[in-house]
Parts: sequence; C-alpha cells; structure tokens
Amino acid sequence: MKQLKELNDRIIRRVNVNLEEFGFDTEDFVNNSLEYDKMLKFYAFYGITSQHPIFFHFRNSNIAGSYFLGQCYVGRSAIYKSDIRGDELKRKGDTIRYRKDVLLVEDERITIRDSLLYKTLVHSNSHNLESPEEFSIHNTISAHYVNIHGSDLQGCFLGPFATVDMMNLHSCIIGEFSYVQAGELFHRKVDPGTVWIRNQNFEFKYKFKKEILDNYVGINSFHQPRGIIYDFVKEREQNYEKLFDVMNLDSIKAPPTSAVNRYAVVQGKIQIGENVLVAQRAFLENAIMGDGSNAQENTYIINSHLSGNCITAHGGKIIHSEIGHSTFVGFNSFLNGKPTAPIKIGEGCIVMPHTIIDPDIPISIPEEHLIWGFIRSKEDIANNSIALDDLAEIRDTLRIGRMTFSGLGSVFIDGFKKRLEHILLANGALFHNGENRGHAQDDQNISFNIIQPYPKGELEGLYPSIRIEP
Amino acid sequence: MKQLKELNDRIIRRVNVNLEEFGFDTEDFVNNSLEYDKMLKFYAFYGITSQHPIFFHFRNSNIAGSYFLGQCYVGRSAIYKSDIRGDELKRKGDTIRYRKDVLLVEDERITIRDSLLYKTLVHSNSHNLESPEEFSIHNTISAHYVNIHGSDLQGCFLGPFATVDMMNLHSCIIGEFSYVQAGELFHRKVDPGTVWIRNQNFEFKYKFKKEILDNYVGINSFHQPRGIIYDFVKEREQNYEKLFDVMNLDSIKAPPTSAVNRYAVVQGKIQIGENVLVAQRAFLENAIMGDGSNAQENTYIINSHLSGNCITAHGGKIIHSEIGHSTFVGFNSFLNGKPTAPIKIGEGCIVMPHTIIDPDIPISIPEEHLIWGFIRSKEDIANNSIALDDLAEIRDTLRIGRMTFSGLGSVFIDGFKKRLEHILLANGALFHNGENRGHAQDDQNISFNIIQPYPKGELEGLYPSIRIEP
Repeated sequence: MKQLKELNDRIIRRVNVNLEEFGFDTEDFVNNSLEYDKMLKFYAFYGITSQHPIFFHFRNSNIAGSYFLGQCYVGRSAIYKSDIRGDELKRKGDTIRYRKDVLLVEDERITIRDSLLYKTLVHSNSHNLESPEEFSIHNTISAHYVNIHGSDLQGCFLGPFATVDMMNLHSCIIGEFSYVQAGELFHRKVDPGTVWIRNQNFEFKYKFKKEILDNYVGINSFHQPRGIIYDFVKEREQNYEKLFDVMNLDSIKAPPTSAVNRYAVVQGKIQIGENVLVAQRAFLENAIMGDGSNAQENTYIINSHLSGNCITAHGGKIIHSEIGHSTFVGFNSFLNGKPTAPIKIGEGCIVMPHTIIDPDIPISIPEEHLIWGFIRSKEDIANNSIALDDLAEIRDTLRIGRMTFSGLGSVFIDGFKKRLEHILLANGALFHNGENRGHAQDDQNISFNIIQPYPKGELEGLYPSIRIEP
Repeated sequence: MKQLKELNDRIIRRVNVNLEEFGFDTEDFVNNSLEYDKMLKFYAFYGITSQHPIFFHFRNSNIAGSYFLGQCYVGRSAIYKSDIRGDELKRKGDTIRYRKDVLLVEDERITIRDSLLYKTLVHSNSHNLESPEEFSIHNTISAHYVNIHGSDLQGCFLGPFATVDMMNLHSCIIGEFSYVQAGELFHRKVDPGTVWIRNQNFEFKYKFKKEILDNYVGINSFHQPRGIIYDFVKEREQNYEKLFDVMNLDSIKAPPTSAVNRYAVVQGKIQIGENVLVAQRAFLENAIMGDGSNAQENTYIINSHLSGNCITAHGGKIIHSEIGHSTFVGFNSFLNGKPTAPIKIGEGCIVMPHTIIDPDIPISIPEEHLIWGFIRSKEDIANNSIALDDLAEIRDTLRIGRMTFSGLGSVFIDGFKKRLEHILLANGALFHNGENRGHAQDDQNISFNIIQPYPKGELEGLYPSIRIEP
C-alpha cells in the first residue's frame, strides 16, 4: 500500500502547486474521498471492439472501478470508478479547422498524468488546437460526478458535479455544479452553480442562488458532496453492484440497431426503440426510449418517456417526465418530476446543462423553448425559459430572472442545433440502411477485459504496467 | 475470424513439416478439436501476486479459457483452456548445475510460439541446459489434458493425456496416455500407453496392453480422445462453469496457511488441513486433505482421504480411496475406487505416473511400495508393485509382469524421494514459523485479470497484443 499512498501524496502536492494563488489545499478532499479498501476491491475494465482503434497503457496507477474505451494512457494517477471513453477521439487523417486545415498525423489519445479523477466521466476529444493528437489531463483533481468533456486540463480542481465542456483550463478551480464552456481559462476560480457559455459571438450566464444550490449540491468542509442530487445518486449506487458480480448477464431486449451496455442498470418495464444508445452506468427504470433517443453515462431515466431523437447528456436525470421529440436534456440536469407533479417538456426544446426542475405541481413547457436555471412552480417558468424564436431575435443583451444573454441569439441557437445534430449522428440515432453508424451500432459488440491491482506487499493497490495494442 | 483460421492453418503446416518422416498429419486433430464459437466465448485470465515476477505478453493469438501465472510470452498460437503456470520458473541469480555452475542472468520465461495447446498444463521450468532462461514450446500441438512439465518442445505432437517430464523433445510424437522422462529425444515416436523413465543410472519401462488402454484412453480416427478416463473428466466439465460465471466467490473454509484456488471446484463435505494447496481446476468432492497434502491442476479427489504430505500430481484422479502419509500419486493416475471396492494405499508409497487401479473388490497396498501399470484385482498387485526396499537392492535388471527395470534401484528410489521432498517444499507443505513458504502460502493472494478477444471483424477471435510488466 506504501506506493499507492505516496502516489496520492504526490498528486496532492502537484495540484496544490498549481492552485497556490487561491490558497486552496486539495489534501482534505483527497484524504476524505479515497477509501483504500475500495481501491483494492473494485476491478477496472476496458472495452475492445472492431470499430475503435486500440491503445491502452496504464502505469504506476490505481484505476479501480474505471472503464476505458478507445485509446488511453494513464500514468502516476488514481482513476476511481471513472469512465474514460475514447470512442470519439480524432483519427489519423482527420483535419481540424483553424484558419487553415490542420491534418492529424496520428490517432488521438487521452493522456492522464499525475491526476486523481473520482467518479468522473472523460469523453469527446481535445478541443485544444495546440495538441490535436492529445487529449490531456495533467496535475488535476476532479471530484464526484464531474464531466470532463473534450477539455484539456492542467493543474485544476473541479468540484462535485461540475462540467467543463470543449475548452482548455490552466490552474483553475471550478465550483461544484458549475457548467463552463468558455474557450480557454487561465488561473480562474468559477463560483459554484455557475452556468456559463462564452465565445466570440455570445455569452450565456446564469448563477444559482447559494441557498438553493446548497439544497441540491452542496459540499462539506472537506469538499465532499451532499444535498438532494447527491443523495439521489448515492441511494442508487448499490443497484450497480450486481452488474459487476457476474461475468455474463442476460441481454436486454432491444432491436438489433440499438445498444444497451451490459454495465447499465435496466429494471422495471422497459421499451427500447430503434437506434437507441444506453451507455454504461446509465440507469433505466420503467422507461420508454423512443427511436434514436439516448441515455448517456450516469444518466437516470425513471418512470419517464423519451420521444424519438431525445438526447440525455451525461449525468442528466429524468424522473416522472415526458420529453418531446428531438429535445435535448443537458449535462447533469435534474428533472425531478413526481407521480402527482409530472414534468412535460415539448418537442425541440433545449434544457440547458445543470438545469433543475423540481416541482410540487404538474409542469409543462411548450415546444421549441430554451430552459435553464431552477424551476419549482409554474411562476418560475417565465423566468427560466424563452421561446427559441424569441431568443433568435436578440442582438445585444437580454436579462430574464438570474440569466443574462448577450450577443447574437441566432448564432447561439444555430450552434446548439448543429451540436445536437452531431450528437445524434455520433450516437447512431440517424443510422439507416447501413449508413450513419454510431455508438448505438458500434457498441453492440464489446469485449470487456478486467484488470486488478497487486493484492499484497509494497505495491498493493497499484496496477502492473499494462500495454494493449492491436 | 479470417485471421484466426489462418493462424490455425499456419500451426498445422509448421508442425506437419516437423513430423513429415512419420507421415503424420495434424490437420484432422486440429479441425476436429477446435470449436471457434468457444474460442470466442471463454475469457482468458492471468494471476498477479506479489511473490512472482510478472511478465505477460500475448500476441497474434487466441488464448480462450487459459490461465497464466508468472512470466510468459505467447505468439502466433492458440492456447485453449490451458494452464500455463510460471510460478516455478528459475530466477535471475539462480544457478543450474552442469559440470560447473551456470548463473542465470535474467528471470526465466515461458515462450510459446506457433503452437496449439488444448487443455494442456504447462508447468515447472526448462530442464534444457542450453536455454536456462527460456522454457520454450515451438511448433508443437498438444491434445486434451497433456502435461508439459519442465520440457522444451520443438515440432512435436502430444496425444491426449500424455505427459512429458523434465526433458527436451525435437520432432517427436508422444502417443496418448504415455509418460516420458527420458532426457532428450530426437525424431522419435513413442507408442501409446508407454511409461518410460530413463537416465544414465537406470531405466523404467512399462507399456499398457493395447486392449486395456483402449478402454481407458483411446483415440478415434481424428485423434480425439475417448474411453473411461476421458468420459470421467467430460462428465464433470460443467461443474467448472459456475466458477467462471461470477467475479467473486465465497471463499472455502481453510486455515490461513493453505490456499484453495477460486478456480477449483469444491463441493460436498470438505476438510482442509494446514499447508494444503488446492490448485486451479482441481476438483474436490467429499474430501479430507491432510496437513501438507496437495491437489494439483486437473486432479480429482472424490470421496477420499489424503493423509498428511500426500502429493497428487497434475491430472491424478483419486476416488473412494484412502492414501497414506507422504504417498505420491503420479501424473494422470486413475485410482477408481468404488463404495464397495475402495482403494487403500499405505504410507510412503510411490504410485507411478499413469497408473490405473480400477478394482471390483477392495484393494489394499502396503506401505513403502512402488506401484505401476494396471491393477484390477488382488492378483494384479503382485505384478504391478514392489516394496521399495526390494527395488533398492536391484543392480541390473528386474522384470515383473509388463514392467522392466534396469540399473540401480537405490538411485531410482533416492532420486524419487528427493523429487518428492522438492515438490512438498515448493508447494508449501513444509511451511513452519514463517519458513519454507511455497505455493500454499504464496497463492493465497492472487488478483485475477480477465482478457477477451476481438468480438467482430477480420480479427474476430484474436486477442490484441497485451503486455504486462511490473
């Protein structure tokens, strides 16, 4: 165990150096989140398919409970119960556009060094133009249920349920339940509960009231999460255990164009349409998944009906809800309907990342709306949504409730719609007659391989160096 | 699947070239033994402990259902449901004695190239003085339940239930159920059912009657095994399946000085003494294992009592038997007692490898005897055993029944006793006060890691290249 403890100490020191200016010490978080017995107990696994380039290299690390797909290097790191999904990495021969085309001369890889990721999802590909062949996370600590989506990180601390999306961060602290998509940030501290999208054409900003956020995702003095959303996921944690106990599970009934990952929890009455993707660590209970809909990692679809081409981004939670066709439910959104207070979202809506809808009475949002923030009552709807057509008219600044939008509304909406189209394509929702294959088709045949650490001695808890190539 | 089929074709051609002089074509064996669906279905696994040096490298191979421990390279081979146990390999700094001491400059590794091993056990270390750092099996096909014990092989075919022990073979065919320990053989064909030990001091030779052997281990025209012993193991095959279905099994009650491998079948009433080793793929049912006794790979101990320091060598089958203290039951022996016809073997006996005792009435063999061949009745005992003291007197030639011994009986017995002492030591039977650790102690903490092949496409059934180092 000695070397594993040294590894964690080294990570703490390296991250702390980067965050010194904020007077932030990561030691409390690390020492209170890591349970060494679990780091020994849970196996890691990696998937092999005939669709994704293979390269795995794990070295001087503990990767307990984590799942890897695609191409990934992990060195001197602790990756606990995390999903490192390298199935959307760029490939040799791809070009990226920045003024002129830049050609990739080798397949992109994820590299994670000197970092601690705790129940974190790493996905997409590097949006850093300086290193298109490397999606890198260095000297970084991320807390429970963080989404690192196509974001290069260097010397950062990401609080519980934070999302960083298609950007680059250097020596930053992102507060709990904050969503940031802001190009490049240096030496910044983002307050908890901030939803912030910024580029050269527009800026969207919303910030949760502290008292409200505290109820849903708070942290204690050791930076450990608490609150309603954390309790919600914690209560369901043991449902996943059975998936890891057996080697072969009965497969879930689904059309041959759809993929239900064997590491997803699927219980109650379930209906899976065509071209549906249910990713590993998704949780389905009494759910109807319309054609082309998806439930990504760490999503929960409970007593709900998703119409065709619905997207539930990573960490989205949809309970007692009916979601209209082509509607997008963003990262970590919490749609907490109840039997007596169901939620209905119309067609073609965009539920912004990190939106909380938690009503006591039935809530219904019309089609083609943007929805954000915190909705508890019918009155809140006006202050937390806008028709897409109205937003498209905006050319300067719009303030509604705690939300500020500035810039070109039409560019914001077009960009969003294009991204949703890309997500549907990548997930295989548009598969037809053998064209437009995506995850729903490619992920049907995965071999899962299981790796464990040294069980005893000085190296206890560390994994041997393992290198897998075609 | 294309590449897997090409791999098998290549192995057939390479082995056939070596065996051309015998007019022997391995194609029938290969095509009738390999089931491609199973080569895709079963996972391979390797064990990691803090006691054994680690090096695994698998390349261009299918290794379905196989178990690896220690250091091993597998290239361009199909290793099906085999145990490759590299836990007795020599280590850097060890010396081997041949006229003068030769120092090993690196750890020994098992290398298997261009070979097909089918339910084969590979164990011990190279006894080839020319390559002390490499235990190599090249261009070789081995059939069901073969034991390759410390034997380098080049261009060989080993028939079902054959054992090659501490020797080197070049371009040889070893018939089914033959046991050979004869130093070095070139271009030889050993008849089925031959038990042959030879060195500069003595020679032991026994050959089963063809009619009798045919009942127990025969082969059909495709070189596939049939007969009583094959039926016996085949009937119990499905008992192993449950071991592979779940990740974690309840551990068997055993003292802390003993190891019961989680891939052993253990059922009925079981009693495990101190310093006991029950290896993977051992089968225990209503068994008492005395202190320091062991059940090695592919052994079956059923309704039997093994006294202290009993050794059951690989593939030994002990049914309705009572085995005396320090008695050795050799490779693939079949002690087929019945409730009405139990077998009793006295203390300090040596049951030669490939001995068959299959009585209709109770059989009892006194202490300190050597036993070989085929025993069905009380009358057979005289023709298939001798007191060790009597054998020790022999200085020229002894013929008893179908057995011929020539040379120095005392050297034969001393050599055997020394080897048994070494086996007890290696297996941890002599562990006391922290001294004399062996497999029974070292194998208590193994991490098992699971690997699977490409599930689809041209590479279907082949494993990616995997390399594991400390």
